[in-house]
Amino acid sequence: MQNKPLILITNDDGIFAPGIFALWEAIHQIGEIFIAAPDTEKSAVGHAITISDPIRVEKINRKNGFSGYAVAGTPADCVKIAVRALMERQPDIVISGINAGANVGASLLYSGTVSAATEGTLLNIPSIAVSLDSLTVKDFNFAGKIAAYIVHQVLEKGLPTGTLLNVNVPAVPESIIKGYKITRQGNSHYQEGFDQREDPRGRTYYWMTGQLVEPTGSSDSDIQALNQNWVSVTPIHYKLTNEEFLPELIEWGLE
Amino acid sequence: MQNKPLILITNDDGIFAPGIFALWEAIHQIGEIFIAAPDTEKSAVGHAITISDPIRVEKINRKNGFSGYAVAGTPADCVKIAVRALMERQPDIVISGINAGANVGASLLYSGTVSAATEGTLLNIPSIAVSLDSLTVKDFNFAGKIAAYIVHQVLEKGLPTGTLLNVNVPAVPESIIKGYKITRQGNSHYQEGFDQREDPRGRTYYWMTGQLVEPTGSSDSDIQALNQNWVSVTPIHYKLTNEEFLPELIEWGLE
Repeated sequence: MQNKPLILITNDDGIFAPGIFALWEAIHQIGEIFIAAPDTEKSAVGHAITISDPIRVEKINRKNGFSGYAVAGTPADCVKIAVRALMERQPDIVISGINAGANVGASLLYSGTVSAATEGTLLNIPSIAVSLDSLTVKDFNFAGKIAAYIVHQVLEKGLPTGTLLNVNVPAVPESIIKGYKITRQGNSHYQEGFDQREDPRGRTYYWMTGQLVEPTGSSDSDIQALNQNWVSVTPIHYKLTNEEFLPELIEWGLE
Repeated sequence: MQNKPLILITNDDGIFAPGIFALWEAIHQIGEIFIAAPDTEKSAVGHAITISDPIRVEKINRKNGFSGYAVAGTPADCVKIAVRALMERQPDIVISGINAGANVGASLLYSGTVSAATEGTLLNIPSIAVSLDSLTVKDFNFAGKIAAYIVHQVLEKGLPTGTLLNVNVPAVPESIIKGYKITRQGNSHYQEGFDQREDPRGRTYYWMTGQLVEPTGSSDSDIQALNQNWVSVTPIHYKLTNEEFLPELIEWGLE
């Protein structure tokens, strides 16, 4: 690594969201910053990428020196195009956030925030996703401090290839935070419903509704840690093969 | 299970794609069929879901009795809305495909086909994704036969909670197929580039390009099996915690 680390910042709430600004404020003195984030909110787009449409990129300036690239694409697109086309060298670290809303349990599959960090790991860059456990709280300052600390730690210690850190911060006053907890992805999932309505022209449409539930919570799960006011840090990778089931599947005699 | 299993068919190439029709033709006599698929192509949308827009659903009829619901949403939306709002009871099995193009290695993260099956497993339904290893071959008949056989097997034997089968079929004549191989997700990934162009108004845009490469292929990987003309069957789950790294991460002293 060069003296000043090169840090790629992205998110899924869009380049004009408060969370990415707070993240930039908290870490911009750690290194050289490059920002590439969606031009509009892209929550819950998962690991979508844009292969059937062209992608446009526009340089934008917010305030206090925050400037970056607004990408007409998904969070994963942002990381790909930044690393492969826009940046002069490979970043030393990718950090995605600060997301408005926790990313735990099954949410990891839907999360654009986590998928952007995942894309970083696919490109062999140590990557971090940071989320604040609230859709309404607007104060990202404490989560920014957490992000800065984790960035320092990852720059110093590195991460195994293909592994990212998924960090979730409780949205409570700093004095109530108990500290860090290393956690596992919990088995929480969405219990969704569909709210059926009629538009003014008499046509039916649906809104997806839903809330995260954890039926069999274990004390070291991400969501339990959050609920007990710990900052949750989960190491995530994408080795998707169910190794335990392989022997039984071979017994099926397909081969 | 009732005498006649209830089968939910979906895909990511859209309800008017040839692959889903071939799948329906191959399996519609196995049980009662319910089809819910995107109204347009939704390739590479990963596990995106639609939470900020309403979702519309339209009943459509193709030919020979193929009828189903065209959903203005993602593949994961299709499974959710079918199971939670459109179907009268929980399906006995979800099958997604037949996709035009293999879904192996890192593609699993981008694949709408696989994500639809994943959504099935999140809803505790045994689920299967089937893909044909070609973007151009239009003959899905053999892949349909494979799909029918796997559906029978899964209906008979079940799958562990949270585990789906990811099936990839080589696009070669049936006589050349060597048989089935139980595989692991390989570590293939995309080497992408961005083709920079100018539109007629002088504005820059990019096309994402890329090809799947497997630098360190092992003989039991999904892509190697395909390349050697085996039908690849990989059991996939979403336990994303990197268990091996947990002890080292605890040593960091964050806690």
